[in-house]
Amino acid sequence: MSVTAGQVIKCKAAVAWEAGKPLAIEEVEVAPPQKMEVRLKILFTSVCHTDVYFWEAKTQDCIFPRILGHEGAGIVESVGEGVTELAPGDHVLPVFTGECRECVHCKSEESNLCSLLRIDLNRAVMINDGKTRFSINGKPIYHFVGTSTFSEYTVVHAGCVAKINPLAPLDKVCVLSCGISTGLGATLNVAKPKKGSSVAIFGLGSVGLGAAEGARLSGASRIIGVDLNPSRFEQAKKFGVTEFVNPKDYIKPVQEVIAEMTGGGVDRSVECTGNVDAMISAFECVHDGWGVAVIVGLAHKDAVFKTHPINFLNERTIKGTFFGNYKPLSDLPLVVEMYMNKELELEKFITHQVSFAEINKAFDLMVKSEGLRCIIRME
Amino acid sequence: MSVTAGQVIKCKAAVAWEAGKPLAIEEVEVAPPQKMEVRLKILFTSVCHTDVYFWEAKTQDCIFPRILGHEGAGIVESVGEGVTELAPGDHVLPVFTGECRECVHCKSEESNLCSLLRIDLNRAVMINDGKTRFSINGKPIYHFVGTSTFSEYTVVHAGCVAKINPLAPLDKVCVLSCGISTGLGATLNVAKPKKGSSVAIFGLGSVGLGAAEGARLSGASRIIGVDLNPSRFEQAKKFGVTEFVNPKDYIKPVQEVIAEMTGGGVDRSVECTGNVDAMISAFECVHDGWGVAVIVGLAHKDAVFKTHPINFLNERTIKGTFFGNYKPLSDLPLVVEMYMNKELELEKFITHQVSFAEINKAFDLMVKSEGLRCIIRME
Ligand SMILES: NC(=O)c1ccc[n+]([C@@H]2O[C@H](COP(=O)([O-])OP(=O)(O)OC[C@H]3O[C@@H](n4cnc5c(N)ncnc54)[C@H](O)[C@@H]3O)[C@@H](O)[C@H]2O)c1
Ligand SMILES: NC(=O)c1ccc[n+]([C@@H]2O[C@H](COP(=O)([O-])OP(=O)(O)OC[C@H]3O[C@@H](n4cnc5c(N)ncnc54)[C@H](O)[C@@H]3O)[C@@H](O)[C@H]2O)c1
Ligand SMILES: [Zn+2]
Ligand SMILES: [Zn+2]
Ligand SMILES: [Zn+2]
Ligand SMILES: [Zn+2]
Repeated sequence: MSVTAGQVIKCKAAVAWEAGKPLAIEEVEVAPPQKMEVRLKILFTSVCHTDVYFWEAKTQDCIFPRILGHEGAGIVESVGEGVTELAPGDHVLPVFTGECRECVHCKSEESNLCSLLRIDLNRAVMINDGKTRFSINGKPIYHFVGTSTFSEYTVVHAGCVAKINPLAPLDKVCVLSCGISTGLGATLNVAKPKKGSSVAIFGLGSVGLGAAEGARLSGASRIIGVDLNPSRFEQAKKFGVTEFVNPKDYIKPVQEVIAEMTGGGVDRSVECTGNVDAMISAFECVHDGWGVAVIVGLAHKDAVFKTHPINFLNERTIKGTFFGNYKPLSDLPLVVEMYMNKELELEKFITHQVSFAEINKAFDLMVKSEGLRCIIRME
Repeated sequence: MSVTAGQVIKCKAAVAWEAGKPLAIEEVEVAPPQKMEVRLKILFTSVCHTDVYFWEAKTQDCIFPRILGHEGAGIVESVGEGVTELAPGDHVLPVFTGECRECVHCKSEESNLCSLLRIDLNRAVMINDGKTRFSINGKPIYHFVGTSTFSEYTVVHAGCVAKINPLAPLDKVCVLSCGISTGLGATLNVAKPKKGSSVAIFGLGSVGLGAAEGARLSGASRIIGVDLNPSRFEQAKKFGVTEFVNPKDYIKPVQEVIAEMTGGGVDRSVECTGNVDAMISAFECVHDGWGVAVIVGLAHKDAVFKTHPINFLNERTIKGTFFGNYKPLSDLPLVVEMYMNKELELEKFITHQVSFAEINKAFDLMVKSEGLRCIIRME
């Protein structure tokens, strides 16, 4: 039992007070974990587009003041009532989606869309009492996707905390809580390319490069990277991408370009852009008879996916995935093991490092699309 | 060697001389089979919508004079040069699509879309020489989908002829060459419902009832039949359909009705209507996390399938199938065995029987959507 268990902890957190204003490092009070909650000491965290999106709040109303952050790694400080799978000292990854182990989705072998704990981008409080565990002078500071890792301590539902190998370096595996696992799982768990097959990856951000890493691990012989931004191509070479297509370089639709390059289409495609036209191209560029397209990107709310039904009849498949179909508690520890066994390479995703005081630099990098992941050292 | 081998055979055939005019039983000359072709004596055949569609020729230009028919069963009379897998006397089912065993699709375990012999609705001649094997006084009579079973003798590419168990009753298994196998395979090979699962079938024609038969064989516990025509419901009960939904009985979209009936959606759906709105409903009515929709119907050429990409992200799958993913030569004999083993029931699909002279009655029944399959006895 840690000395702080049951006590309010005062610590530093990066608070987003207003849309688009630099985060301010503040002293916050972090209440003890309630029923089925755990309090974590965060050691490392990284920044993802989604943090920037909810901080910029350009296209939708967002809640403030808030503690953002959802790619983190840390150690359990204390656990609330009913928590049996976690104990103080455990090394963990908090995740923006969860696994209650009780619902129809958790009981299904196929789904990771837990009815209780699946991601809720609009929830800013804990589900036990509908309140926040963070405050400054009694004023509530809101949570973000149940994780809020931009704080030295945070409170997370136990069903959103994956217990991992204590030997895993937390400054590396912290990047596994979101986009990289999403892309990796989209290829390994959903697209499942066979050895020697061809895979097209649409979008070469962190998610797409995670998908490319999955294609490399699957032994794909051709990995075709598709992006509108040619500056993404150089970096992608490190991820096993063998060929590049910029749709802007062609008059004909990119699906036709890919069909010509591959004698009828790729065996698998993974869409990691969020752009609906890329989704359509990703579907239509797979080979008839056996091609499978996997949708990963989050499209605009008014986007419409359109295709001629003959594309289905010609025996193509399209399916989507959330968080690479990984069940966070059951499967994420195994992804950490893939890194420990030197199968999965994570270093190439980590392009920058800053101290917690410099967190706004990490946001700048993401806004400018410089590099891939910037690790923030909390201590 | 049959006495007729190498000779022109004179026999009766039902010739479609003009769009929508009753077929005329004529004496035709059937040339011997050329390289990789076989000549078959047809004993039984049945009528399918596609025959009627190409006879009515309402919405597209069709070729005349022509011998229609693509659901038949017969015996090999003689074989052309290079044919090694078939010999005179073999019991066979000719099929509108083929298997060359050489191309990339035939070599793939997943595809049945043979590059050489896949269905071509516009081809009306044999591929070896681009000519017909049928003639009347030297005037060519055209082929239909490579089968032209409305003739006592027909010439078919050897890659489109499945050799079956000689004990199988040809007046029953002749219905396996098209819609029924298509629906059956769509469920058994593509949707693959687990025992105890729920399956929605859109469209309760022969194809949909074949799909329902597949769901029954899979041990599905709920089989929900969806059709706009309530007269289809009574018949469907024989096929294991347990519940019925007529979209016309509801204001809300049928996908919502099904989601409410099933606590979130069905495990599998199979679309057998050809209507694009039904395709969209069939996709959107499957459960998030694991639901799979299978498209079987042939949509209008201008139809557009539309859905919001979030339906993919919530881990739904949509895929299409052609001929139930059966490879005609490799797999159709095994479907015949399913019937011989009394797993698969075919009698309930056969609602009428006529003599060859009465073939226009069989067309009338199909035009009026009366019954399911009408068997035509050639002798
Ligand atoms: N399904 C999930 O569980 C999940 C999890 C995390 C992220 N995501 C989504 O994955 C997507 C990618 O995330 P990211 O962090 O890698 O983003 P990113 O912005 O770093 O990368 C996206 C890339 O796509 C490229 N792109 C955009 N439109 C394109 C088009 N039409 N054709 C080709 N390339 C195009 C961009 O140039 C960019 O390089 C986003 O939509 C994000 O919301 C989904
Ligand atoms: N993919 C293949 O290999 C293959 C092979 C054979 C047939 N087909 C196609 O399968 C489809 C069905 O063939 P069939 O012979 O059973 O046809 P059918 O006309 O006998 O049956 C279709 C049924 O669908 C119903 N229907 C139409 N629109 C509907 C809607 N919006 N919602 C619910 N029900 C609706 C009709 O009332 C009818 O009962 C056709 O499109 C045909 O072209 C495909
Ligand atoms: Zn759950
Ligand atoms: Zn993220
Ligand atoms: Zn047919
Ligand atoms: Zn072939």
